[in-house]
This record gives sequence, C-alpha cells and structure tokens, in this order.
Amino acid sequence: MSAFSRFTPLIGALPATVPFVGPEAIERARGRAVQARIGANENGFGPAPSVIEAMKSAAADSWKYSDPENYQLKQALAAHLGCNAENIAIGEGVDGLLGQIVRMVIEPGMPVVSSYGAYPTFNFHVAGHGGTLVTVPYRDDREDLDALMDTVIRENAPLVYFANPDNPMGSWNDAEKIVSFARGLPESCLMVLDEAYCETAPDGATPELAAMIDLPNIIRTRTFSKAYGLAGARVGYTISTPDNATAFDKIRNHFGMNRVGVAAALAALKDQDYLAEVIDKIKASRDRISAIARANGLEPLPSATNFVAIDCGRDGTHARAIVDGLMEHGVFIRMPGVAPLNRCIRISAGPEQDMALLEEVLPKVLKGL
Amino acid sequence: MSAFSRFTPLIGALPATVPFVGPEAIERARGRAVQARIGANENGFGPAPSVIEAMKSAAADSWKYSDPENYQLKQALAAHLGCNAENIAIGEGVDGLLGQIVRMVIEPGMPVVSSYGAYPTFNFHVAGHGGTLVTVPYRDDREDLDALMDTVIRENAPLVYFANPDNPMGSWNDAEKIVSFARGLPESCLMVLDEAYCETAPDGATPELAAMIDLPNIIRTRTFSKAYGLAGARVGYTISTPDNATAFDKIRNHFGMNRVGVAAALAALKDQDYLAEVIDKIKASRDRISAIARANGLEPLPSATNFVAIDCGRDGTHARAIVDGLMEHGVFIRMPGVAPLNRCIRISAGPEQDMALLEEVLPKVLKGL
Repeated sequence: MSAFSRFTPLIGALPATVPFVGPEAIERARGRAVQARIGANENGFGPAPSVIEAMKSAAADSWKYSDPENYQLKQALAAHLGCNAENIAIGEGVDGLLGQIVRMVIEPGMPVVSSYGAYPTFNFHVAGHGGTLVTVPYRDDREDLDALMDTVIRENAPLVYFANPDNPMGSWNDAEKIVSFARGLPESCLMVLDEAYCETAPDGATPELAAMIDLPNIIRTRTFSKAYGLAGARVGYTISTPDNATAFDKIRNHFGMNRVGVAAALAALKDQDYLAEVIDKIKASRDRISAIARANGLEPLPSATNFVAIDCGRDGTHARAIVDGLMEHGVFIRMPGVAPLNRCIRISAGPEQDMALLEEVLPKVLKGL
Repeated sequence: MSAFSRFTPLIGALPATVPFVGPEAIERARGRAVQARIGANENGFGPAPSVIEAMKSAAADSWKYSDPENYQLKQALAAHLGCNAENIAIGEGVDGLLGQIVRMVIEPGMPVVSSYGAYPTFNFHVAGHGGTLVTVPYRDDREDLDALMDTVIRENAPLVYFANPDNPMGSWNDAEKIVSFARGLPESCLMVLDEAYCETAPDGATPELAAMIDLPNIIRTRTFSKAYGLAGARVGYTISTPDNATAFDKIRNHFGMNRVGVAAALAALKDQDYLAEVIDKIKASRDRISAIARANGLEPLPSATNFVAIDCGRDGTHARAIVDGLMEHGVFIRMPGVAPLNRCIRISAGPEQDMALLEEVLPKVLKGL
C-alpha cells in the first residue's frame, strides 16, 4: 500500500483529474510541438515591453518574499479602478481566489449554482470542497441569468458563479442586467462575478464598480492573465466590500505571491497605452478568426473576450475531430466540454503568424474529416 | 452589514490574522526603511547569476501559463535527488503545500501534533481547517521526538509536523533518529518532515531519500526559498510515495505555478557550484553572527540552518526590546513567539554589509535597554 490511509473521506473520493490538460502535456503525448498556441485564452501579443523590463529588474530581488500585505499593488489597483485599497484582495490568479471563495462558503453537500458547461476550474474547487454543483443550461449560448436566479432561490444556494463576458462562449450580458441580477439576489447567496475578460468587452457590458461595491454578497474577480498578457505571472484580484476582502486573510497564503509577478502587475497597470494597443489587436484578431471560420463554412459567435467560439454545425465528436486535426498541424485550440456548447471550437486571439497557420491548415483539417 | 452572512462557521470563527508581519509592513508602520533584511530567513546572498539570467530570459514568455504537470521540474528534481519524478509534487512554496496537506487529512476537531513554538504558518493552516493543535515542548531547544511520538499515540493523531533542521531554533536531530521516528510511527499518522533548511545542515542530519521514500505516511517538504535564494519565486516540492504525490492533484491549483519562478528553479538546480558557494557563505555568516552575539554577552545556539537563534539570557520582553531596538537602526530580525524559546532572537545569515550594521548597532541597542 503506497498512499496514506487516512486522507479525509472527501479527499479519498476525489479523482486526481485536471480541469484542463496543458499544451505541454499534449505536445509530450503526441510528440509534436505546438506552433500556434491559441487554445488556452492566453494572450500571444504578450506583456508590454515596459512590463518585461520591470520583471527583469525584479529578478535579482527574488531572494525576498513579496510583501504579504500586497500594499503597493492594492494601492495601484484602487487608484486605477477608482475604489479603495480596502475593497481589493490579491491572490495567485483567479483560480486560486475561486478556490478560497468556495472554501469560505461551502460545506459538504451544499448546492452551488453555475451554468452547465461553464468554468471547469470553478467546478473543480466545488468538488474539492464537497459542494453539489447545480447547473442551468446556457440560453442562446449565453449565461441565463433568469434561470440562475430561479435555481438559487429554489435551492437556497449559498453560492452562484458566472462569468461576464463568458468563457467558453465569449458571449456577454449587459451591465444593466448584471446589476439587476446582483441587486435582486438574496443576500444569503454569494455571487461570484468572474470578469477575467472585462478589458476586451464592449462598452455597456461591464458594470461600474459603484453599482455593486456596497453589496455584501458580491465578489468580482479579475486578472492580469488575459488582456494584460501575464497568465504565467499568476496575479488575480477581487473587488468586494472591505469585510469580504479581509475574509481572504483568514485562509490565504500570505507569502504566496511571486515577487516578479507582482512587479509585472504594477508595471502593467502603469502602461495603459500598451493595454489599449493590445485590446485593438485582440479585436482585430477576433475579426480575423471569424473571417477564417466563415471562409470555411463555420459560424463564429459574437465575442467580448480574447477568443472566439465557432459553431461547427454538428456535434461534439465533430468539433473534437477538428481540435485534434488542428493539433496534428501544430495548432493548439480547445473546445467547450459539454453539449450543446461542444458543437463549437474555441480559438484564442493571437499574432498574425498564428492566424496565418490557422488559415492555412483549417481547410485541410475539414477536408480530411 | 458589509460581510457576507453565510461564510461557514469555521471561517466565521477564524481571526484575520497573519502568521508573520512582513518587513514592508514594519517599514510602513514605523516610517523607517530596513537596511539589513535579516529577519525572515531569506537568503541575502541572492540567487545565482545564472538563475537571474534564466528569469530574465523567461520574462517575455509570461503570457503563457506554466506547464500544469510541472514535467520538466519534476524530471530535474528526480535526477538531482535520485528518485523518480512520480515521487515529487510541486507547489507554490512549502507554505502552500502545507495547506494542501492539512486539507487532505484534517477535519474539524482532529488533533494535529507539533512542537510548542514551531512553524506558525503550519498552525495557521491547522486552524484554517478546524484542527486542534496539540503541542509538546521543545527539549533543550530541539524538537523532542520522543514526546512527539507519545503524543501522536495518545491522541491517535492523523498528522504530525516537525522541521529538521528546526525553525525557529536552528537545531537538528540526527538522520538516524528521524528515520527511527518515521519507521516507528503508526501508519495511521501522516508525518510531515519539513526540510526547508536541509541544504545548510551538517552531514548526518538529513536522512537519505531511500530511508523513507517507501513509507506511505511520510511527506518531506523542501524549497527553493532558502539556500537557493528564491523566496520570492514561490517554488516548493514534496517527496513521498507516488500515490501521495498524486493526491495533491486532487486539490492543487494546476495552473498555479509562476512561469518565471519555475524557470528559476530549473536554473538553480543546474548551478550546484553556486549553491555550494552560498552554503559556505551562509556558514561563515552564521559564525559571524555568533561572534557578534558573544562579543555582546549573548549566547548563540548551534545552527544547521541559514539563521542563528541567540539566547539573550532573559525573557520574551527583553528579547522583543532587542528586536524593536534593532529595527530602530534599520536592522530587521525576528524572534520565536512563545516561552521559553522567546528568550532568543533569530538572525538570518546575510552579506557582510548586513553583518557590519548588526555589529555596529547591537551594542547600542543593548546599552539603551
């Protein structure tokens, strides 16, 4: 016998699964290098030159732990967002923060409401804390706020999660609807509003901070991983009431932040010109992806994110064959996990060389099916 | 009301305390800059030049998530340590790994055995999962393995933690005693052997991997934060049976590693010449700290770590006055938290400029008391 015999029953029953298989694992399994890494909604336009410089400057100081209070980054975020530093909590990416939120609210058997096919990593944390996921279907490829609300009330759920703009579909609800949902939600339910993709959303999709910052049952999560091009830096944050922000201090790893990553985030906030440029590039790339899809008889869905979901017109098996076929040509993309979303493939915005390779090989893949 | 009303009772009852106040917070509170940062057992000799170069090279790639399987780092560690990659689990520093271990084993009310005055961050995780800490006193400033064993058996505890070499005292038990403890421990108790300071320990203090790697109830934790000089990079790892290593996959943040940090760890493993140099410098610095202590009528304790605990001959109030007094001169050090250990102050090894400042100001501080 080689595992410890007394892990908790909850841990013992969990599978050792991963929410997502990384492109490196696919490369190793297939013996084929990824040439266009446009599957994980990373940002191939990369961080700003000023950010890379800041990281290089910070490298030699890596013998020091990062400030456990994240004072500077909180101050900078508050100034940028127009809130108080006390409204901010910092964590090792949104994934880590989601795990902490679930842990703070969920005891085994409690219902957690989300959409069927939404973020697998959130579901991973719910399972990890013994929660019972109760899902509602997407409606017209969008998070169905009415159904989410009905389910929260029916289940007396303490936790509801959705993303706006949405992953994996790229769709969004208008700010007004989000605020109305938040203000109508029972205060006994914590709403996690994942805004990982807010920087690339159209006007009117992201609620003003002031619209919800006073609500004790709303936590908004944001990240430097997407538009800021810093997925590997692992810096995310939440926006909430001060008391909810303080709650993270009860359980977080106070010395958990990477020092170079924090330096990168600080520099990224300062370089809003670069961010604006990248957002333009992402939008152009979304158009490019959509045009390639249409040229191949596939239907791109509108996107507020740094990726485009493309309806391939058939079922999950067909979409999977396209994903696998593209990887045979070194193009790494992903697809939603469940029906009916899995009639789609999901392609991240990226530099022109990636788009050119996609344009070249997609027809070959489709022809070969 | 500004906090969510339905956090779990466990979370609701936890204080929002921090295990350690960071030097940055002390600087802000006192309005005085730290000039000698020798309090957090960081390594002021810093990472290798080759490591800094590797970090700089990796910076531009920070738009990519780090490989969630940590394949390369596991392979490199296995080759370095002489075990299999399957024996390794990687995490965001030992602190994060300790939190995961506690979560895997402890349900509310379960006893966890440790020494009174040992690692506060471990205790923080135990409290965070509702465990009941049962402590045994240090014996001659060393972890008392016999008392730990007796307490495990008396409490039927599922988890015991100690560090070898020890923090905060710098003391150690011989490898033979550690192995004997591990082999004598009931298999119903998981032993966490924290070896954060193993690289600076004398021969005979650290058990061979082979001596315990087959035991299903032993997890050893190690880090790049201390001798490797990469506290800010947040890379730690465990050594255990393959099944125990896999257990982390059930709950860890698969995409939680910082990409530059992983690049740093890989480069650090390759530069063992630099590590050897730094270890020599740390040992010389320990001697220097000890000499300064003796010159001031204080008694340094033998150390196997990158710091020296110094017996100041009186109580915790006296030691605290020295810690505070040194900070008035820009010298940041720490001290153990509880009696009788808190008759000591704890000073980390560091470069000569730090030692020179310590040497200059310690007599002034002592004179002023």
